[in-house]
Amino acid sequence: MTLEIHPLVGIGVVSSGDDVASVLTGALEPLRPLSGDVIVVTHKIVSKAEGAVREIVGDPEEFKKLLVEEQATSIVRRRGDLIITETKHGFVCANAGVDRSNAAPGTMILLPDDPDRSAHRIREKLERQFGIELAVIISDTFGRPWRVGLTDVAIGISGLIAVLDLKGTKDWVGRELDITEVAVADELAAAADLVMGKAEGIPAALVRGYEGPRGEGRAIDLVRPVNEDLFR
Amino acid sequence: MTLEIHPLVGIGVVSSGDDVASVLTGALEPLRPLSGDVIVVTHKIVSKAEGAVREIVGDPEEFKKLLVEEQATSIVRRRGDLIITETKHGFVCANAGVDRSNAAPGTMILLPDDPDRSAHRIREKLERQFGIELAVIISDTFGRPWRVGLTDVAIGISGLIAVLDLKGTKDWVGRELDITEVAVADELAAAADLVMGKAEGIPAALVRGYEGPRGEGRAIDLVRPVNEDLFR
Repeated sequence: MTLEIHPLVGIGVVSSGDDVASVLTGALEPLRPLSGDVIVVTHKIVSKAEGAVREIVGDPEEFKKLLVEEQATSIVRRRGDLIITETKHGFVCANAGVDRSNAAPGTMILLPDDPDRSAHRIREKLERQFGIELAVIISDTFGRPWRVGLTDVAIGISGLIAVLDLKGTKDWVGRELDITEVAVADELAAAADLVMGKAEGIPAALVRGYEGPRGEGRAIDLVRPVNEDLFR
Repeated sequence: MTLEIHPLVGIGVVSSGDDVASVLTGALEPLRPLSGDVIVVTHKIVSKAEGAVREIVGDPEEFKKLLVEEQATSIVRRRGDLIITETKHGFVCANAGVDRSNAAPGTMILLPDDPDRSAHRIREKLERQFGIELAVIISDTFGRPWRVGLTDVAIGISGLIAVLDLKGTKDWVGRELDITEVAVADELAAAADLVMGKAEGIPAALVRGYEGPRGEGRAIDLVRPVNEDLFR
Protein backbone atom coordinates (compact mmCIF):
# COMPACT_ATOMS: atom_id res chain seq x y z
CA MET A 1 0.00 0.00 0.00
CA THR A 2 1.00 3.61 -0.48
CA LEU A 3 0.10 6.13 2.18
CA GLU A 4 -1.00 9.61 1.12
CA ILE A 5 -1.07 12.47 3.60
CA HIS A 6 -3.01 15.51 2.47
CA PRO A 7 -3.07 18.80 4.37
CA LEU A 8 -6.57 20.18 4.87
CA VAL A 9 -6.26 23.73 3.60
CA GLY A 10 -8.58 26.70 3.80
CA ILE A 11 -9.70 26.19 7.39
CA GLY A 12 -10.13 29.62 8.90
CA VAL A 13 -9.97 30.74 12.51
CA VAL A 14 -12.09 28.49 14.73
CA SER A 15 -14.01 30.04 17.63
CA SER A 16 -16.07 28.85 20.57
CA GLY A 17 -19.31 27.26 19.41
CA ASP A 18 -18.07 26.39 15.91
CA ASP A 19 -18.76 22.87 14.72
CA VAL A 20 -15.42 21.21 13.92
CA ALA A 21 -16.98 18.65 11.59
CA SER A 22 -18.58 21.42 9.52
CA VAL A 23 -15.29 23.31 9.45
CA LEU A 24 -13.51 20.17 8.20
CA THR A 25 -16.16 19.29 5.63
CA GLY A 26 -15.32 22.17 3.30
CA ALA A 27 -11.62 21.34 3.44
CA LEU A 28 -12.29 17.65 2.89
CA GLU A 29 -14.60 17.97 -0.11
CA PRO A 30 -11.88 18.58 -2.77
CA LEU A 31 -10.17 15.37 -1.57
CA ARG A 32 -13.36 13.29 -2.02
CA PRO A 33 -13.03 11.30 1.21
CA LEU A 34 -12.98 7.50 0.87
CA SER A 35 -13.98 4.83 3.35
CA GLY A 36 -10.99 4.04 5.53
CA ASP A 37 -9.49 7.53 5.44
CA VAL A 38 -8.08 8.76 8.75
CA ILE A 39 -8.65 12.42 9.63
CA VAL A 40 -6.05 13.87 12.00
CA VAL A 41 -7.06 17.12 13.73
CA THR A 42 -4.83 19.16 16.03
CA HIS A 43 -6.52 19.56 19.37
CA LYS A 44 -6.26 23.33 19.20
CA ILE A 45 -9.22 23.83 16.91
CA VAL A 46 -11.19 21.27 18.91
CA SER A 47 -10.41 23.05 22.18
CA LYS A 48 -11.33 26.42 20.70
CA ALA A 49 -14.61 25.13 19.27
CA GLU A 50 -15.48 23.51 22.60
CA GLY A 51 -14.55 26.61 24.58
CA ALA A 52 -11.63 24.89 26.34
CA VAL A 53 -9.79 28.20 26.51
CA ARG A 54 -9.14 30.71 29.28
CA GLU A 55 -8.96 34.49 29.24
CA ILE A 56 -5.63 35.63 30.64
CA VAL A 57 -6.02 37.60 33.86
CA GLY A 58 -3.05 39.65 35.05
CA ASP A 59 0.52 38.77 34.12
CA PRO A 60 0.48 36.10 31.37
CA GLU A 61 3.47 34.15 32.74
CA GLU A 62 2.00 34.10 36.27
CA PHE A 63 -1.42 33.23 34.94
CA LYS A 64 0.02 30.36 32.90
CA LYS A 65 1.75 28.92 35.98
CA LEU A 66 -1.48 28.96 37.96
CA LEU A 67 -3.41 27.46 35.06
CA VAL A 68 -0.86 24.66 34.66
CA GLU A 69 -1.13 23.84 38.38
CA GLU A 70 -4.91 23.84 38.09
CA GLN A 71 -4.96 21.59 35.01
CA ALA A 72 -2.37 19.12 36.34
CA THR A 73 -3.45 16.20 38.50
CA SER A 74 0.17 15.61 39.48
CA ILE A 75 3.64 17.00 38.80
CA VAL A 76 6.06 14.41 37.39
CA ARG A 77 9.14 16.67 37.26
CA ARG A 78 9.87 20.34 37.60
CA ARG A 79 12.99 22.32 36.69
CA GLY A 80 12.90 26.07 36.30
CA ASP A 81 10.01 26.97 34.03
CA LEU A 82 9.68 23.42 32.73
CA ILE A 83 6.88 21.47 34.38
CA ILE A 84 6.14 17.89 33.35
CA THR A 85 2.64 17.01 34.49
CA GLU A 86 0.04 14.33 34.45
CA THR A 87 -3.36 15.53 33.22
CA LYS A 88 -6.81 14.34 34.24
CA HIS A 89 -6.86 12.31 31.01
CA GLY A 90 -3.75 10.42 32.17
CA PHE A 91 -1.38 12.04 29.66
CA VAL A 92 2.12 12.95 30.79
CA CYS A 93 3.17 16.16 29.05
CA ALA A 94 4.65 19.61 29.61
CA ASN A 95 2.45 22.30 31.18
CA ALA A 96 -0.65 20.08 31.43
CA GLY A 97 -1.27 20.85 27.77
CA VAL A 98 -1.74 24.60 28.38
CA ASP A 99 -0.46 26.45 25.33
CA ARG A 100 -0.47 29.97 23.94
CA SER A 101 0.57 29.23 20.34
CA ASN A 102 -2.30 29.81 17.93
CA ALA A 103 -4.52 30.99 20.80
CA ALA A 104 -6.66 34.08 20.24
CA PRO A 105 -4.94 37.16 21.72
CA GLY A 106 -5.43 37.35 25.48
CA THR A 107 -6.27 33.64 25.84
CA MET A 108 -4.64 30.28 26.51
CA ILE A 109 -5.74 26.95 25.13
CA LEU A 110 -6.43 23.89 27.30
CA LEU A 111 -6.77 20.27 26.27
CA PRO A 112 -10.30 19.20 25.29
CA ASP A 113 -12.31 17.84 28.19
CA ASP A 114 -12.67 14.35 26.67
CA PRO A 115 -10.72 14.11 23.40
CA ASP A 116 -11.99 10.59 22.57
CA ARG A 117 -15.55 11.87 22.78
CA SER A 118 -14.61 14.87 20.64
CA ALA A 119 -13.05 12.55 18.05
CA HIS A 120 -16.14 10.35 18.11
CA ARG A 121 -18.50 13.27 17.52
CA ILE A 122 -16.43 14.61 14.63
CA ARG A 123 -16.28 11.14 13.12
CA GLU A 124 -20.03 10.54 13.38
CA LYS A 125 -20.85 13.82 11.68
CA LEU A 126 -18.28 13.36 8.91
CA GLU A 127 -19.40 9.77 8.30
CA ARG A 128 -22.98 10.95 7.95
CA GLN A 129 -21.92 13.86 5.75
CA PHE A 130 -19.92 11.73 3.32
CA GLY A 131 -21.74 8.41 3.75
CA ILE A 132 -18.51 6.49 4.41
CA GLU A 133 -16.56 4.97 7.32
CA LEU A 134 -13.76 7.09 8.71
CA ALA A 135 -11.37 7.23 11.65
CA VAL A 136 -10.52 10.41 13.55
CA ILE A 137 -7.43 11.21 15.61
CA ILE A 138 -7.05 14.34 17.72
CA SER A 139 -3.37 15.21 18.07
CA ASP A 140 -1.14 17.26 20.30
CA THR A 141 2.57 18.01 20.27
CA PHE A 142 4.42 16.34 23.15
CA GLY A 143 8.05 16.30 24.21
CA ARG A 144 9.73 13.13 25.32
CA PRO A 145 12.63 12.16 27.56
CA TRP A 146 16.02 11.31 26.08
CA ARG A 147 15.32 12.79 22.66
CA VAL A 148 15.41 16.38 21.42
CA GLY A 149 12.39 17.91 19.75
CA LEU A 150 8.70 17.29 19.92
CA THR A 151 6.49 14.97 17.92
CA ASP A 152 2.75 14.83 17.47
CA VAL A 153 0.88 12.08 19.31
CA ALA A 154 -2.74 10.95 19.50
CA ILE A 155 -4.74 12.30 22.46
CA GLY A 156 -8.17 11.38 21.10
CA ILE A 157 -9.20 8.45 18.91
CA SER A 158 -12.32 7.13 17.22
CA GLY A 159 -12.67 4.26 14.79
CA LEU A 160 -9.11 2.98 15.01
CA ILE A 161 -7.01 0.59 17.09
CA ALA A 162 -4.44 2.76 18.88
CA VAL A 163 -1.78 0.15 19.59
CA LEU A 164 -1.16 -2.68 17.13
CA ASP A 165 -0.49 -5.89 19.03
CA LEU A 166 1.76 -8.20 17.05
CA LYS A 167 2.04 -10.85 19.78
CA GLY A 168 2.35 -14.25 18.15
CA THR A 169 3.23 -12.73 14.78
CA LYS A 170 6.21 -14.39 13.11
CA ASP A 171 9.03 -12.46 11.52
CA TRP A 172 10.38 -13.13 8.07
CA VAL A 173 12.47 -16.07 9.18
CA GLY A 174 9.63 -17.65 11.18
CA ARG A 175 10.69 -16.44 14.62
CA GLU A 176 8.23 -14.73 16.95
CA LEU A 177 8.75 -10.95 17.00
CA ASP A 178 10.57 -9.35 19.93
CA ILE A 179 8.61 -6.16 19.36
CA THR A 180 4.93 -6.72 19.85
CA GLU A 181 3.22 -3.38 20.40
CA VAL A 182 3.35 -0.60 17.82
CA ALA A 183 1.82 2.78 18.69
CA VAL A 184 0.22 3.25 15.29
CA ALA A 185 -2.08 6.10 16.36
CA ASP A 186 0.97 8.09 17.49
CA GLU A 187 2.77 7.26 14.24
CA LEU A 188 -0.27 8.50 12.28
CA ALA A 189 -0.32 11.74 14.30
CA ALA A 190 3.42 12.22 13.69
CA ALA A 191 3.01 11.55 9.98
CA ALA A 192 0.16 14.07 9.73
CA ASP A 193 2.26 16.72 11.50
CA LEU A 194 4.74 16.61 8.61
CA VAL A 195 2.17 18.33 6.35
CA MET A 196 0.62 20.57 8.98
CA GLY A 197 3.43 22.61 10.46
CA LYS A 198 2.92 24.80 13.47
CA ALA A 199 2.74 28.18 11.82
CA GLU A 200 0.92 27.73 8.52
CA GLY A 201 -2.64 27.58 9.79
CA ILE A 202 -3.13 23.98 8.66
CA PRO A 203 -4.77 22.29 11.66
CA ALA A 204 -5.80 18.98 10.05
CA ALA A 205 -4.76 16.35 7.54
CA LEU A 206 -6.26 13.38 5.75
CA VAL A 207 -4.33 10.10 5.74
CA ARG A 208 -5.33 7.75 2.93
CA GLY A 209 -4.19 4.17 2.48
CA TYR A 210 -3.63 3.18 6.09
CA GLU A 211 -4.59 -0.47 6.30
CA GLY A 212 -4.29 -1.02 10.06
CA PRO A 213 -7.19 -2.47 12.07
CA ARG A 214 -10.30 -0.44 12.85
CA GLY A 215 -12.19 -0.64 16.10
CA GLU A 216 -12.91 1.34 19.21
CA GLY A 217 -9.44 2.35 20.35
CA ARG A 218 -9.09 5.00 23.03
CA ALA A 219 -6.35 7.48 23.83
CA ILE A 220 -5.81 5.86 27.23
CA ASP A 221 -4.62 2.72 25.38
CA LEU A 222 -1.50 4.76 24.63
CA VAL A 223 -0.84 5.71 28.25
CA ARG A 224 1.49 3.42 30.17
CA PRO A 225 0.02 2.52 33.57
CA VAL A 226 2.01 4.14 36.38
CA ASN A 227 2.98 0.78 37.89
CA GLU A 228 4.56 -0.32 34.57
CA ASP A 229 6.35 2.97 34.03
CA LEU A 230 9.99 3.16 35.13
CA PHE A 231 10.16 6.91 34.54
CA ARG A 232 7.55 8.44 36.82
CA MET B 1 2.01 19.70 -0.26
CA THR B 2 0.87 16.09 -0.18
CA LEU B 3 3.17 13.49 1.29
CA GLU B 4 3.37 10.07 -0.33
CA ILE B 5 4.89 7.12 1.50
CA HIS B 6 5.70 4.14 -0.67
CA PRO B 7 6.87 0.79 0.69
CA LEU B 8 9.94 -0.57 -1.09
CA VAL B 9 8.87 -4.07 -2.03
CA GLY B 10 10.80 -7.01 -3.38
CA ILE B 11 13.87 -6.61 -1.18
CA GLY B 12 15.09 -10.12 -0.36
CA VAL B 13 17.11 -11.36 2.58
CA VAL B 14 20.17 -9.18 3.13
CA SER B 15 23.43 -10.80 4.24
CA SER B 16 26.86 -9.69 5.38
CA GLY B 17 28.76 -8.05 2.56
CA ASP B 18 25.68 -7.05 0.56
CA ASP B 19 25.56 -3.48 -0.69
CA VAL B 20 22.43 -1.83 0.75
CA ALA B 21 22.28 0.84 -1.95
CA SER B 22 22.30 -1.84 -4.66
CA VAL B 23 19.61 -3.77 -2.81
CA LEU B 24 17.47 -0.61 -2.62
CA THR B 25 18.06 0.40 -6.25
CA GLY B 26 15.95 -2.40 -7.68
CA ALA B 27 13.10 -1.62 -5.32
CA LEU B 28 13.34 2.10 -6.04
CA GLU B 29 13.36 1.90 -9.82
CA PRO B 30 9.60 1.39 -10.32
CA LEU B 31 8.99 4.53 -8.22
CA ARG B 32 11.30 6.66 -10.43
CA PRO B 33 12.99 8.52 -7.59
CA LEU B 34 12.81 12.32 -7.68
CA SER B 35 15.13 14.92 -6.20
CA GLY B 36 14.07 15.58 -2.63
CA ASP B 37 12.77 12.07 -1.94
CA VAL B 38 13.63 10.72 1.50
CA ILE B 39 14.57 7.04 1.73
CA VAL B 40 13.91 5.46 5.14
CA VAL B 41 15.71 2.16 5.79
CA THR B 42 15.29 0.02 8.90
CA HIS B 43 18.65 -0.48 10.52
CA LYS B 44 18.29 -4.26 10.41
CA ILE B 45 19.26 -4.64 6.78
CA VAL B 46 22.08 -2.12 7.27
CA SER B 47 23.41 -4.03 10.29
CA LYS B 48 23.19 -7.33 8.43
CA ALA B 49 24.96 -5.94 5.38
CA GLU B 50 27.69 -4.44 7.56
CA GLY B 51 28.11 -7.64 9.57
CA ALA B 52 26.86 -6.01 12.80
CA VAL B 53 25.45 -9.36 13.93
CA ARG B 54 26.60 -11.99 16.42
CA GLU B 55 26.37 -15.77 16.35
CA ILE B 56 24.54 -17.00 19.42
CA VAL B 57 26.76 -19.11 21.69
CA GLY B 58 25.07 -21.25 24.36
CA ASP B 59 21.68 -20.37 25.78
CA PRO B 60 20.10 -17.58 23.67
CA GLU B 61 18.57 -15.72 26.64
CA GLU B 62 21.86 -15.80 28.58
CA PHE B 63 23.79 -14.81 25.48
CA LYS B 64 21.47 -11.89 24.84
CA LYS B 65 21.96 -10.61 28.39
CA LEU B 66 25.73 -10.67 28.02
CA LEU B 67 25.54 -9.04 24.61
CA VAL B 68 23.30 -6.24 25.93
CA GLU B 69 25.76 -5.56 28.77
CA GLU B 70 28.60 -5.49 26.26
CA GLN B 71 26.81 -3.12 23.85
CA ALA B 72 25.58 -0.74 26.56
CA THR B 73 27.78 2.09 27.75
CA SER B 74 25.49 2.59 30.74
CA ILE B 75 22.31 1.20 32.24
CA VAL B 76 19.55 3.82 32.65
CA ARG B 77 16.98 1.51 34.33
CA ARG B 78 16.55 -2.19 34.87
CA ARG B 79 13.48 -4.15 35.96
CA GLY B 80 13.29 -7.91 35.45
CA ASP B 81 14.23 -8.68 31.88
CA LEU B 82 13.75 -5.07 30.77
CA ILE B 83 17.00 -3.14 30.48
CA ILE B 84 17.01 0.50 29.35
CA THR B 85 20.50 1.36 28.18
CA GLU B 86 22.59 4.07 26.68
CA THR B 87 24.53 2.97 23.61
CA LYS B 88 27.92 4.17 22.40
CA HIS B 89 26.04 6.32 19.87
CA GLY B 90 24.28 8.12 22.72
CA PHE B 91 20.84 6.58 22.10
CA VAL B 92 18.72 5.59 25.08
CA CYS B 93 16.81 2.42 24.20
CA ALA B 94 15.93 -1.06 25.40
CA ASN B 95 18.59 -3.77 25.24
CA ALA B 96 21.24 -1.52 23.66
CA GLY B 97 19.51 -2.17 20.33
CA VAL B 98 20.22 -5.93 20.40
CA ASP B 99 17.33 -7.67 18.67
CA ARG B 100 16.46 -11.13 17.42
CA SER B 101 13.46 -10.27 15.21
CA ASN B 102 14.29 -10.73 11.54
CA ALA B 103 17.78 -11.98 12.45
CA ALA B 104 19.11 -15.02 10.59
CA PRO B 105 18.58 -18.17 12.70
CA GLY B 106 21.24 -18.50 15.38
CA THR B 107 22.18 -14.82 15.30
CA MET B 108 21.32 -11.50 16.95
CA ILE B 109 21.42 -8.10 15.29
CA LEU B 110 23.30 -5.12 16.73
CA LEU B 111 22.99 -1.45 15.84
CA PRO B 112 25.21 -0.30 12.96
CA ASP B 113 28.60 0.97 14.13
CA ASP B 114 28.02 4.51 12.82
CA PRO B 115 24.48 4.86 11.39
CA ASP B 116 25.06 8.42 10.11
CA ARG B 117 28.01 7.17 8.09
CA SER B 118 25.93 4.24 6.82
CA ALA B 119 23.16 6.65 5.79
CA HIS B 120 25.68 8.88 4.05
CA ARG B 121 27.17 5.99 2.05
CA ILE B 122 23.76 4.75 0.95
CA ARG B 123 22.76 8.28 -0.05
CA GLU B 124 25.93 8.91 -2.06
CA LYS B 125 25.51 5.70 -4.02
CA LEU B 126 21.81 6.24 -4.68
CA GLU B 127 22.37 9.86 -5.71
CA ARG B 128 25.01 8.72 -8.19
CA GLN B 129 22.80 5.89 -9.42
CA PHE B 130 19.76 8.08 -10.07
CA GLY B 131 21.51 11.42 -10.71
CA ILE B 132 19.37 13.27 -8.15
CA GLU B 133 19.58 14.66 -4.61
CA LEU B 134 18.16 12.45 -1.87
CA ALA B 135 18.04 12.18 1.89
CA VAL B 136 18.45 8.92 3.80
CA ILE B 137 17.21 8.01 7.28
CA ILE B 138 18.15 4.79 9.07
CA SER B 139 15.40 3.88 11.54
CA ASP B 140 14.95 1.70 14.59
CA THR B 141 11.96 0.93 16.78
CA PHE B 142 12.25 2.45 20.25
CA GLY B 143 10.00 2.41 23.29
CA ARG B 144 9.35 5.53 25.30
CA PRO B 145 8.41 6.40 28.88
CA TRP B 146 4.80 7.23 29.75
CA ARG B 147 3.30 5.88 26.56
CA VAL B 148 2.42 2.34 25.48
CA GLY B 149 3.79 0.90 22.28
CA LEU B 150 6.86 1.57 20.22
CA THR B 151 7.44 4.01 17.37
CA ASP B 152 10.18 4.20 14.76
CA VAL B 153 12.80 6.90 15.21
CA ALA B 154 15.81 8.07 13.22
CA ILE B 155 19.17 6.62 14.31
CA GLY B 156 21.12 7.63 11.19
CA ILE B 157 20.65 10.66 8.93
CA SER B 158 22.14 12.09 5.76
CA GLY B 159 20.98 15.04 3.71
CA LEU B 160 18.31 16.27 6.09
CA ILE B 161 17.91 18.57 9.08
CA ALA B 162 16.91 16.29 11.98
CA VAL B 163 15.23 18.84 14.25
CA LEU B 164 13.31 21.74 12.77
CA ASP B 165 13.96 24.88 14.81
CA LEU B 166 10.98 27.24 14.68
CA LYS B 167 12.44 29.78 17.10
CA GLY B 168 11.25 33.22 16.10
CA THR B 169 8.49 31.83 13.90
CA LYS B 170 5.15 33.50 14.42
CA ASP B 171 1.90 31.60 14.79
CA TRP B 172 -1.25 32.39 12.90
CA VAL B 173 -2.21 35.26 15.16
CA GLY B 174 1.30 36.78 15.08
CA ARG B 175 2.50 35.42 18.43
CA GLU B 176 5.84 33.65 18.74
CA LEU B 177 5.41 29.89 18.95
CA ASP B 178 5.71 28.14 22.31
CA ILE B 179 6.90 25.01 20.56
CA THR B 180 10.13 25.62 18.77
CA GLU B 181 11.78 22.27 18.04
CA VAL B 182 10.09 19.60 15.95
CA ALA B 183 11.79 16.21 15.62
CA VAL B 184 11.02 15.88 11.92
CA ALA B 185 13.46 13.02 11.29
CA ASP B 186 11.68 10.96 13.95
CA GLU B 187 8.30 11.89 12.46
CA LEU B 188 9.53 10.77 9.03
CA ALA B 189 10.75 7.46 10.50
CA ALA B 190 7.39 6.95 12.26
CA ALA B 191 5.49 7.76 9.07
CA ALA B 192 7.58 5.28 7.07
CA ASP B 193 6.93 2.55 9.65
CA LEU B 194 3.22 2.72 8.84
CA VAL B 195 3.88 1.13 5.43
CA MET B 196 6.68 -1.20 6.51
CA GLY B 197 5.32 -3.35 9.30
CA LYS B 198 7.52 -5.65 11.32
CA ALA B 199 6.59 -8.95 9.76
CA GLU B 200 6.06 -8.33 6.06
CA GLY B 201 9.67 -8.20 4.92
CA ILE B 202 9.43 -4.54 3.86
CA PRO B 203 12.57 -2.95 5.32
CA ALA B 204 12.46 0.42 3.55
CA ALA B 205 10.16 3.14 2.26
CA LEU B 206 10.31 6.19 0.04
CA VAL B 207 8.80 9.46 1.32
CA ARG B 208 7.93 11.92 -1.44
CA GLY B 209 6.79 15.50 -0.99
CA TYR B 210 8.55 16.35 2.27
CA GLU B 211 9.48 20.01 1.98
CA GLY B 212 11.52 20.38 5.18
CA PRO B 213 15.04 21.79 5.09
CA ARG B 214 17.98 19.79 3.76
CA GLY B 215 21.45 19.88 5.23
CA GLU B 216 23.89 17.81 7.21
CA GLY B 217 21.78 16.70 10.17
CA ARG B 218 23.10 13.95 12.43
CA ALA B 219 21.36 11.41 14.63
CA ILE B 220 23.00 12.91 17.72
CA ASP B 221 20.97 16.10 17.07
CA LEU B 222 18.00 14.05 18.29
CA VAL B 223 19.64 12.95 21.53
CA ARG B 224 18.97 15.13 24.55
CA PRO B 225 22.20 15.91 26.40
CA VAL B 226 22.30 14.15 29.78
CA ASN B 227 22.47 17.44 31.69
CA GLU B 228 19.24 18.65 30.06
CA ASP B 229 17.43 15.36 30.58
CA LEU B 230 15.18 15.06 33.64
CA PHE B 231 14.64 11.34 33.12
CA ARG B 232 18.09 9.77 33.30
